[in-house]
Amino acid sequence: MPPDIRPFEEIRMLFANMPAPDAQALAAVRARDSELTKPPGALGRLEEIVEWLAAWQGRAEPVIERPLVAVFAGNHGVVAQGVSAFPASVTQQMVANFQSGGAAINQICKIHGLGLKVFELALERPTVDFTEAPAMDEREAAATFAYGMEAVGGGVDLLAPGEMGIGNTTSAGAIYAALYGGPASRWTGRGAGVDAAGLVRKNAAIEKALALHGPHLSDPLEILRRLGGREIAAIMGAIMAARLNRIPVVLDGYVACAAAALLHALSTESIAHCVAGHVSAEGAHRDILARLGKRPLLDLDMRLGEGSGAALAIGVVRAALACHRDMATFQSAGVSGKTQ
Amino acid sequence: MPPDIRPFEEIRMLFANMPAPDAQALAAVRARDSELTKPPGALGRLEEIVEWLAAWQGRAEPVIERPLVAVFAGNHGVVAQGVSAFPASVTQQMVANFQSGGAAINQICKIHGLGLKVFELALERPTVDFTEAPAMDEREAAATFAYGMEAVGGGVDLLAPGEMGIGNTTSAGAIYAALYGGPASRWTGRGAGVDAAGLVRKNAAIEKALALHGPHLSDPLEILRRLGGREIAAIMGAIMAARLNRIPVVLDGYVACAAAALLHALSTESIAHCVAGHVSAEGAHRDILARLGKRPLLDLDMRLGEGSGAALAIGVVRAALACHRDMATFQSAGVSGKTQ
Repeated sequence: MPPDIRPFEEIRMLFANMPAPDAQALAAVRARDSELTKPPGALGRLEEIVEWLAAWQGRAEPVIERPLVAVFAGNHGVVAQGVSAFPASVTQQMVANFQSGGAAINQICKIHGLGLKVFELALERPTVDFTEAPAMDEREAAATFAYGMEAVGGGVDLLAPGEMGIGNTTSAGAIYAALYGGPASRWTGRGAGVDAAGLVRKNAAIEKALALHGPHLSDPLEILRRLGGREIAAIMGAIMAARLNRIPVVLDGYVACAAAALLHALSTESIAHCVAGHVSAEGAHRDILARLGKRPLLDLDMRLGEGSGAALAIGVVRAALACHRDMATFQSAGVSGKTQ
Repeated sequence: MPPDIRPFEEIRMLFANMPAPDAQALAAVRARDSELTKPPGALGRLEEIVEWLAAWQGRAEPVIERPLVAVFAGNHGVVAQGVSAFPASVTQQMVANFQSGGAAINQICKIHGLGLKVFELALERPTVDFTEAPAMDEREAAATFAYGMEAVGGGVDLLAPGEMGIGNTTSAGAIYAALYGGPASRWTGRGAGVDAAGLVRKNAAIEKALALHGPHLSDPLEILRRLGGREIAAIMGAIMAARLNRIPVVLDGYVACAAAALLHALSTESIAHCVAGHVSAEGAHRDILARLGKRPLLDLDMRLGEGSGAALAIGVVRAALACHRDMATFQSAGVSGKTQ
């Protein structure tokens, strides 16, 4: 980049050139849907899903040939505040578990035929404890956003960004509190299962950080670098790259949605290509989705992260597309239409 | 059967010998779950699903090797009252569509690897118009229940009973009104898309039938034969046979649940082996599930029948089992446990 443009300004420029939904593809899907052997509207949200795929892929016949779950892993300095039930070493151990196929996300990807890539974000070098100073400097936050953008390549046609990072529900909770106000406890939950005393420490850490960084939190990119983590920066980049490349996105849960919420705060339009895969049992995720204008596909009390809720929802997306693509029409099947 | 035992008495006797959930299998699943590389409870309802499979299959290691969607099709004399948007001939036409692979249920079964069987129940001979007389006599209702029991064979290990039948949301609505009281309009919806005048006729038909059969509607089996249809009788039999053979059942929507509601009215315990696959957008299905004590797995505004909602939910059930069966344990993956 030219030396006279600050890294965050580069990111802000991306929002000027976001593609719009493809009205022709949408109309083509609606026309075909009306001919399929079912009462109009009887497949409910499955019909909306196909419209969404078509509009954002810009294809009258949308495809799911290279769906990708991209899991970004980061470590967090705020773990020093005793906010998690697990030690920070578990982030690296779970990355190894993803790589050897032993985690929940591996099984869900296998069942639904999804590609899985795991991106380690300097795990040996946690972000700065944000109760004491900004988690990242601007250059690092922007570089990680750019790294997330690069992760979305290779002809991916449906993206589910996931995350792993001990301590990252504390970072996400801080982001929500900064964006939406109110006490930290309104937004947070037990994460990976912290006990009551740990939850008190978690909320206290967020309150301390909000007091420390308060004057700088009116800009979502400042919230990202001060309170966020590398996996959240990378997911923001991945969602933005998907938008620029006409790849629909299925959002995962509490932490992944912190990235979506920051984008939404920068431009509500910037996450129009995203559906909410599920509502998590973690913290205030249900309220957060409502603020983002998203109705979740699944509501199964999950709170694991890893992209697991989004990956599970892709099972529904795949079925929706199969119905649209392969069902017979009234005419081809010789089925009578409505008489009333 | 012995000539001195009335057909419905044979059915009532089945309720005396229903197997209970297997506490040992349940305990084994819980023990393994606690060792898997995830925070306790983080997979939410996916964990409950595996417990349910194990408890009802009676297997510490439950399986989904022969999942079956069994679609029962019937025709209804009440169609003469102008209650449906489609002519009765569509039932047979849709059966042909199922057989040639063109319906929504075919695509969902293909995506999730489910077997599909379609059972035609004397389509050429609709039930009697229940606004004028009982839809079936006792012998026919019981024989159809028995036919439904026979349909569950061949080593099926997970069952989703579905239905097709022009006019059958009117039958189901009448059953709900008979079971739970209140005006017909409290329970009914637009079915396959009847217009406003058709909905008035639908509710009027149900009210007329309730007045005609009222004195006999305290017995759920009398409700079945007077207001039901053959597909509803067959689904009752299939659910009961599944229970007796330790096959867990995923319930479909508005019409299929009328069969479950009749069983539940005979014995609340008789549908304990069933989960609700989804909540339908049709009529009062959400309230009905609450009365049955079932929380749906999916809530996607679907209202198609055919077993489509249940089949879609089996995608979630399959993923739940894959996670339980194939995830690494903390020990095998070298992942540290909780510190708090």
